[in-house]
Amino acid sequence: MTGGDDPDPARAGTTTLRDVGERALIRRIRDRVGAGGPRVLAGIGDDAAVVAGSGGTLLLTTDSFLEDVHFRRRTATLRDIGAKALAVNVSDIAAMGGEPRWALIALALPPTLSVLDVDELYAGLEETAERYGVSLVGGDTCAAPVGLGLAVTLVGEVDGAPVRRDGARPGDAILVTGTLGAAAAGLAVLEGGPGPAPADAVGEVIRAHRRPTPRVAEGRLIRASQAATAMIDLSDGFSTDLGHILAESRVGALVRLDALPVAAAACQVARARGTDVLTWAVSGGEDYELLFTATASRAAALARDVTLETGTPVRIVGEVQPAEVGLRLVDATGHPRAVRPGFDHFASGAERGAGQARRSTGSANG
Amino acid sequence: MTGGDDPDPARAGTTTLRDVGERALIRRIRDRVGAGGPRVLAGIGDDAAVVAGSGGTLLLTTDSFLEDVHFRRRTATLRDIGAKALAVNVSDIAAMGGEPRWALIALALPPTLSVLDVDELYAGLEETAERYGVSLVGGDTCAAPVGLGLAVTLVGEVDGAPVRRDGARPGDAILVTGTLGAAAAGLAVLEGGPGPAPADAVGEVIRAHRRPTPRVAEGRLIRASQAATAMIDLSDGFSTDLGHILAESRVGALVRLDALPVAAAACQVARARGTDVLTWAVSGGEDYELLFTATASRAAALARDVTLETGTPVRIVGEVQPAEVGLRLVDATGHPRAVRPGFDHFASGAERGAGQARRSTGSANG
Repeated sequence: MTGGDDPDPARAGTTTLRDVGERALIRRIRDRVGAGGPRVLAGIGDDAAVVAGSGGTLLLTTDSFLEDVHFRRRTATLRDIGAKALAVNVSDIAAMGGEPRWALIALALPPTLSVLDVDELYAGLEETAERYGVSLVGGDTCAAPVGLGLAVTLVGEVDGAPVRRDGARPGDAILVTGTLGAAAAGLAVLEGGPGPAPADAVGEVIRAHRRPTPRVAEGRLIRASQAATAMIDLSDGFSTDLGHILAESRVGALVRLDALPVAAAACQVARARGTDVLTWAVSGGEDYELLFTATASRAAALARDVTLETGTPVRIVGEVQPAEVGLRLVDATGHPRAVRPGFDHFASGAERGAGQARRSTGSANG
Repeated sequence: MTGGDDPDPARAGTTTLRDVGERALIRRIRDRVGAGGPRVLAGIGDDAAVVAGSGGTLLLTTDSFLEDVHFRRRTATLRDIGAKALAVNVSDIAAMGGEPRWALIALALPPTLSVLDVDELYAGLEETAERYGVSLVGGDTCAAPVGLGLAVTLVGEVDGAPVRRDGARPGDAILVTGTLGAAAAGLAVLEGGPGPAPADAVGEVIRAHRRPTPRVAEGRLIRASQAATAMIDLSDGFSTDLGHILAESRVGALVRLDALPVAAAACQVARARGTDVLTWAVSGGEDYELLFTATASRAAALARDVTLETGTPVRIVGEVQPAEVGLRLVDATGHPRAVRPGFDHFASGAERGAGQARRSTGSANG
């Protein structure tokens, strides 16, 4: 140990992790996170966290969040980074129709990071945790050779059968919550400048990129309806994520582009830049909306009920087809539109989808 | 997507992740990992894995395993790295007296890694998973900006109350399973050459470093005895990890150095190098043995029973004392010995403990 102790709060802004050492850092995290929430029998402070399962079905998900892969410190605060790293995991639980419960945070931290930087990161994690009823129960800290990295693991529970990706059947309706394209527009603005778009639209798309809103209540209602046949969250982009449902369910799909709920702010930004907003809505990622399929006869009522209950718009955007149709996107006149490729983490830049040089991946679970 | 498909097995050795793309990689991992084990309702292939909890107490732990922090590719195969990354998490569950069940693997992979490299990494993960009855149920893959990184999360279960770090009371005996110092000796050999030590001893300490043996059966018996009052696994080193129990339990300890079960192979290597093996046994880390305290009157019987059942030696090495004693290590004549500092991830090299330039950290849970 370096013999460091909890730093004087007044000096914490310039006090680095190297100054305080690992133990003081963990103590500091533990002090702020506290004893955990409901059913947390032992949180930070032992070899493993101890929680009381309900005896039902557990949902397990993990996502990495790495500097210069998933975020840039130039375009997001540490609070944003912490909030989003947990939110993308919450979204995975929402996409099963489950309840997020307990999170573990593995941190790889550059030793030159300040103690207040770590506080900010945790403040963001806590914002999301509090909003969605998640308890931060443990983790791991180590020195990062380069760049900040988080690996967040979230354990959820579901009361009954979760909604998987493999249950879509030809004839089912395809639905999506919220609006599309704002997160990709925000990334474009952050990476390439705002252009002449109105300031409020710019602010809105940047916020959509930095602070996604996972749809937990919506996912719960969609699952509880028993009308949903498959569900996924939109992390890699509409076309890519719909492709995951199609592949798992061995079906095809017809999507009407004019039915896609494109975010108004993304439209404004696209218009100002002279680009096509549909590229962001279809191939952009990180909207963290829910994309799901439902029995056709019940789809409209389900969409209405979810909106009434949560205030979140839900739109029918297409129909599940037999597998041989593939993924077919058509414009208002019925003409097909080519699908841009989704994000691939291992592709070189030239091979990547439009405007997607950097962003989160979906889980290896899919 | 790059349009890559599963590579021809004959070419997989030179086929990089950039060649095959993310989807083909995930499909390959999913094909080899399969549908998961008992009580895995849905493994790789959805937003979250779905498992059936028993309704009892869950144990949650995560550990990062990063290139040039926790391992070097020069001194360990990818199979070793995979096996150890999971083993250190299994050890955390063992240290609670629990049963490891379900693991999530978050991988940050350099795009130039070959597909066979990832196969080897998974082969190592699977070796440990099979040995300890763990199901690999999901994870996340993304491109690493530099170096290979794993963050492994393990969910365990425990039938009854787990053994925590905070229950040691003055008068309790202090016990340790197995032998100490071999992993640190192995690291010293790998980093600084074998010296004139006998080849079999060198092989043994290298193996101890690369392939730790978590003590799951021993932990289960120790917990079930109800004689144990606190337990931890030895990841950071005997003195540091005992320090964690003392801090959590607000007690001190007297340890007799001549009672420590120093690994014979570590002694041989130390003698050949002219170094003091006690430094490795006391301050070296990564032995992944269990260090625990137990009611004094029952300690000898517990040690004997665990050895009879598992074949693993268990030694009484000291006694819990009041907090004001601190951590006191004495030699055979009763003279105190200074304690070298344990590993600190954020300390600069000069401030770190002996021979501990690189190795695993304990969990932020402690």
